[in-house]
Amino acid sequence: MLMLALESSAKAASAAVFEDGKLLGVTVENSGLTHSRTLLPMAEDLLRNLDKTVRDIGVVAVAHGPGSFTGLRIGMAEAKGLCWALQIPAVGVSTLEAMAFGGPDMDGTMLCCAMDARRGQVYNALFTVEGGRPRRLTEDRAISIAELEPELLAEKKPWVLLGDGAELCYNTLDRGRLALHLAPEPLRLQNARGVGLAALEREPRPVDELLPVYLRLSQAERERQSHLAK
Amino acid sequence: MLMLALESSAKAASAAVFEDGKLLGVTVENSGLTHSRTLLPMAEDLLRNLDKTVRDIGVVAVAHGPGSFTGLRIGMAEAKGLCWALQIPAVGVSTLEAMAFGGPDMDGTMLCCAMDARRGQVYNALFTVEGGRPRRLTEDRAISIAELEPELLAEKKPWVLLGDGAELCYNTLDRGRLALHLAPEPLRLQNARGVGLAALEREPRPVDELLPVYLRLSQAERERQSHLAK
Repeated sequence: MLMLALESSAKAASAAVFEDGKLLGVTVENSGLTHSRTLLPMAEDLLRNLDKTVRDIGVVAVAHGPGSFTGLRIGMAEAKGLCWALQIPAVGVSTLEAMAFGGPDMDGTMLCCAMDARRGQVYNALFTVEGGRPRRLTEDRAISIAELEPELLAEKKPWVLLGDGAELCYNTLDRGRLALHLAPEPLRLQNARGVGLAALEREPRPVDELLPVYLRLSQAERERQSHLAK
Repeated sequence: MLMLALESSAKAASAAVFEDGKLLGVTVENSGLTHSRTLLPMAEDLLRNLDKTVRDIGVVAVAHGPGSFTGLRIGMAEAKGLCWALQIPAVGVSTLEAMAFGGPDMDGTMLCCAMDARRGQVYNALFTVEGGRPRRLTEDRAISIAELEPELLAEKKPWVLLGDGAELCYNTLDRGRLALHLAPEPLRLQNARGVGLAALEREPRPVDELLPVYLRLSQAERERQSHLAK
């Protein structure tokens, strides 16, 4: 059975196709073009070149957040459209967990997954690799880098930084006290391979249960609430 | 200026597009379909989805070997056809060097690049990472794993294994005496991102200088020579 995996939580967009748990193909694009222009054609091209069609897809995996509100909505909408049309289930996975599954797989490696959430915060979760797969140490959260630092210091181990917020963390955290490594680019930036690998660990669910996880209010909602409070 | 990079030296095929040295997009497919069927459509799809056309390509980078004779011929033929038609230069890069450029980039990392060359040998070259990029320790060669082992032991450092021959080395070398790490899959398997990164370090040349580097005779040539010797 084929699984189509989609990642659109940040600037890069990515699609991957798995067959019976094995990665057949993956595309990552970081062109600055909008995901609404690139994400579905990318999946369509990949399937065609693998000699498959959209009807071969049995399940869609998608990063449900956290991440760019617009990016997540495009990925979720495309996943929901596909699943509804094909009458197939979906797997929503945490963007941060997908990063961890796509990252270094050596046992004992400490993974700090981070996306730039603006306003002085990162979306973050911490993992450690056990038996070749990441084990969660924290929930997904929006956290300031100043709050994150003592958690990393408590571990006394080098941390591998993953995600489009990895460089921000690398440049902001105190490298005098912390051993930090930026993962090489193909592992660092979130992509659909990681989404697929994370999804393989979960049961597919009816697509109407698929919901974006923003972790905080959108700018429009914040402004409305502050307006109402006045 | 756009650079199109192609990798077809082993079972997986891969195309990547760079603009002014920056990776815009990359596709890797490992479907078992022949490269003559997949490699050009992959590049075409990638360019179209990046809003570029074949005429935007200013240089073609290609892995010139060592590797699968058939795979290399397909990649080289496509590169030559494109360059001839577009009147643009090419950069041929060692498959093994491309692996190293696509691999882990932490300074001090020791890289052992290997492809299964059959008949008890691997195509191999050794590198160390300095200033974020690989520095060569050996030439590309076809070598038995038994001959490779003492060279690795001489270094007293852990080795990261890259390439489609990495697992073969991991399973054959003496892990009691050597610290070996299989690189995670996106870094391990040769792909067009590594070809492009290696090509960025070299001057483009007229395409008629582009020649495959097989490192040893093809099976047909070996059989002919043994036939002639009788």
